Amino acid sequence: MKVLVINCGSSSIKYQLFEMEDETVLASGLVEKIGAEAAIITHEVADREEEVITGEILDHREGINRVLRLLVRPDGGVIKDEKEVAAVGHRVVHGGEYFAESAIITREVRTAIRKTIDLAPLHNPPNLLGIDAAQAQLPSAVHVAVFDTAFHQSMPEYAYMYPLPRILYQKHRVRRYGFHGTSHQYVAQRAAVFLGKPLEELRLISCHIGNGASLTAIQHGKSVDTSMGMTPLEGLMMGTRCGDIDPAIVPYVIAKEELTLAEVKSMMNKHSGLMGVSGFSGDMREVTEAMFDGNKQAKLAIDMYVYRLKKMIGSYLAIMNGADALIFTAGVGENASSIRQKACEDMSFLGISLDLEENAKRCKKERVVSAADSKVKVLVLPTNEELMIAREAKELV
Amino acid sequence: MKVLVINCGSSSIKYQLFEMEDETVLASGLVEKIGAEAAIITHEVADREEEVITGEILDHREGINRVLRLLVRPDGGVIKDEKEVAAVGHRVVHGGEYFAESAIITREVRTAIRKTIDLAPLHNPPNLLGIDAAQAQLPSAVHVAVFDTAFHQSMPEYAYMYPLPRILYQKHRVRRYGFHGTSHQYVAQRAAVFLGKPLEELRLISCHIGNGASLTAIQHGKSVDTSMGMTPLEGLMMGTRCGDIDPAIVPYVIAKEELTLAEVKSMMNKHSGLMGVSGFSGDMREVTEAMFDGNKQAKLAIDMYVYRLKKMIGSYLAIMNGADALIFTAGVGENASSIRQKACEDMSFLGISLDLEENAKRCKKERVVSAADSKVKVLVLPTNEELMIAREAKELV
Repeated sequence: MKVLVINCGSSSIKYQLFEMEDETVLASGLVEKIGAEAAIITHEVADREEEVITGEILDHREGINRVLRLLVRPDGGVIKDEKEVAAVGHRVVHGGEYFAESAIITREVRTAIRKTIDLAPLHNPPNLLGIDAAQAQLPSAVHVAVFDTAFHQSMPEYAYMYPLPRILYQKHRVRRYGFHGTSHQYVAQRAAVFLGKPLEELRLISCHIGNGASLTAIQHGKSVDTSMGMTPLEGLMMGTRCGDIDPAIVPYVIAKEELTLAEVKSMMNKHSGLMGVSGFSGDMREVTEAMFDGNKQAKLAIDMYVYRLKKMIGSYLAIMNGADALIFTAGVGENASSIRQKACEDMSFLGISLDLEENAKRCKKERVVSAADSKVKVLVLPTNEELMIAREAKELV
Repeated sequence: MKVLVINCGSSSIKYQLFEMEDETVLASGLVEKIGAEAAIITHEVADREEEVITGEILDHREGINRVLRLLVRPDGGVIKDEKEVAAVGHRVVHGGEYFAESAIITREVRTAIRKTIDLAPLHNPPNLLGIDAAQAQLPSAVHVAVFDTAFHQSMPEYAYMYPLPRILYQKHRVRRYGFHGTSHQYVAQRAAVFLGKPLEELRLISCHIGNGASLTAIQHGKSVDTSMGMTPLEGLMMGTRCGDIDPAIVPYVIAKEELTLAEVKSMMNKHSGLMGVSGFSGDMREVTEAMFDGNKQAKLAIDMYVYRLKKMIGSYLAIMNGADALIFTAGVGENASSIRQKACEDMSFLGISLDLEENAKRCKKERVVSAADSKVKVLVLPTNEELMIAREAKELV
């Protein structure tokens, strides 16, 4: 069975076509600058050179049409007919309280996604554009929505409610939702396979730390808490997001700097985190490099980043009374051995100790990086959200 | 030596007169409703019945004058002459970055307290009123300012900086300060005495949980982190304060409910926490009672309160790689055995286990409530901020 996975941004489409029999990627790519005169398609097929195609692409519908033509073209295509695509898995950022799992996209599902736009004004609208465009182009396929929030719908009420007047929840659905659910769920499943134990018997802490970053506490295979909240701003310090701060800072800064609400949101989401503290970059690689070159602000940024990560790990150990494994995944989690090392340093009281040599190795494989006597196993597990979305779509066909 | 301790609110003066030789309280009391026609003085002297005096008190100066007259009156006074008061210890909420310890109030000190008004607009102005009034009435005494923030000035930069654009710190001093310092320092010193070990060798987590609530991690006698931040709003869920929330909620709620900045601050500080979730009270005793009567919102409020406390304890264990003792103090910490019990439940992995029977006892004494095999000793230590302020004042004379 062939499954196409689509992830739409406001001017972009990320796609991967899977052969689900052996879960291989037949083709993948990215359409950028939709709506601009010089849109770019970067298309990749295994064992072939990457193709880059430029030209005007007016909207998402045209973008998806162009992708399909690349997939089915007689010379260099990977399928013969669009009808071979049995299912399309759409990444949808926010499912609100409507979706605790993936769903075949019906009219009702589409309406529920629309109703959640208020909570994800930047993400759900382009996700809907992608759904509409793909449904028009691939009418015979089953279209499935896979939500970033769904995995976290299992959180208990005391974990997802905010200590705010209850009316805010009743009127405006102010509560914690959590994000990166597809990734957290994927690595949790991998951890169970890797450790050779049923997921239901494990207590896991997964650290998805990329440009965005979130931690999830997973008990009996279910998310019981996660660090992102109503929006992806809460929790850890990230590339450009501040994460947790004194909420009183928000009105203080609005007043002092005479900011609009849009400006203060932009400040917290795009100009904070590593970027705000280092003053020059939200990219962990660049900030790390600068730190090694002696840049003090870069060092402070990384010290803060790791310190906050460490505190969050401690708090998740407290709520589950320990953990069988601590998982690192996503860009920083998979590649930045120095960040893993600092986050696990002086954590022996909490049952965490690294094998420094193993941890320092550069390698793309799933592996254990904790010391033999570490009560909490520390794992590096590369994430694969696209594959997870494809599996969900296949499951629902 | 006699030391008078003064704690001024906008319309109140709390006072205690100490004989420092044996650290006994000669008299104590509260002046309320200053500025109103029917102000009230409640005055207490050991072994005598409490007196309640009403009448017009126009301002803080008159309030302090009335208190002094009660102290020195021939019939029932506790001192013969105001000049016996060698020092006055003033509680000052915010010392900004100016004060890492208590200070004799000079013109420069007064200026620095004034400069910090922006950070504590509700507290520092009445503190200054009290200082001016007391200096006018007791010109021969040494006046000392004891700051709620000073103890936390030892926090490392990576703990006190926020992951926000650096300019906010440079221009507006946006950083974490922490509060309740006098109380955290007091119980830390008591813990050392109680455990019979030098404070410098201990790692302590002190939970000051009253109507306001904060945790402090104390290493080598110094505060290395604390849960309140730039303002007392950050951190734990409290009686009426929300503590940590997704900062993106602030602009969201301002927009949805069309709130002013003052309104959103008031919502987060006065209508959230136990009050916001229970819907009827910010008082732990009332909410606990309602929970036992089957009130579901009350139960949720307490579950959230404890859950957030537990996570914070876990995070402080992570940053100090364990702790020698976990201290509970202040109203809730000293008296609510059920809160202590829930906060320490299922924490064996982190080395915490209670002696449930010992913990359940009602008693005003300093004591251990952890089980014999608990790696982290759990202590209940009644706080005494006034005595701590008196000691600081005496020290500086």
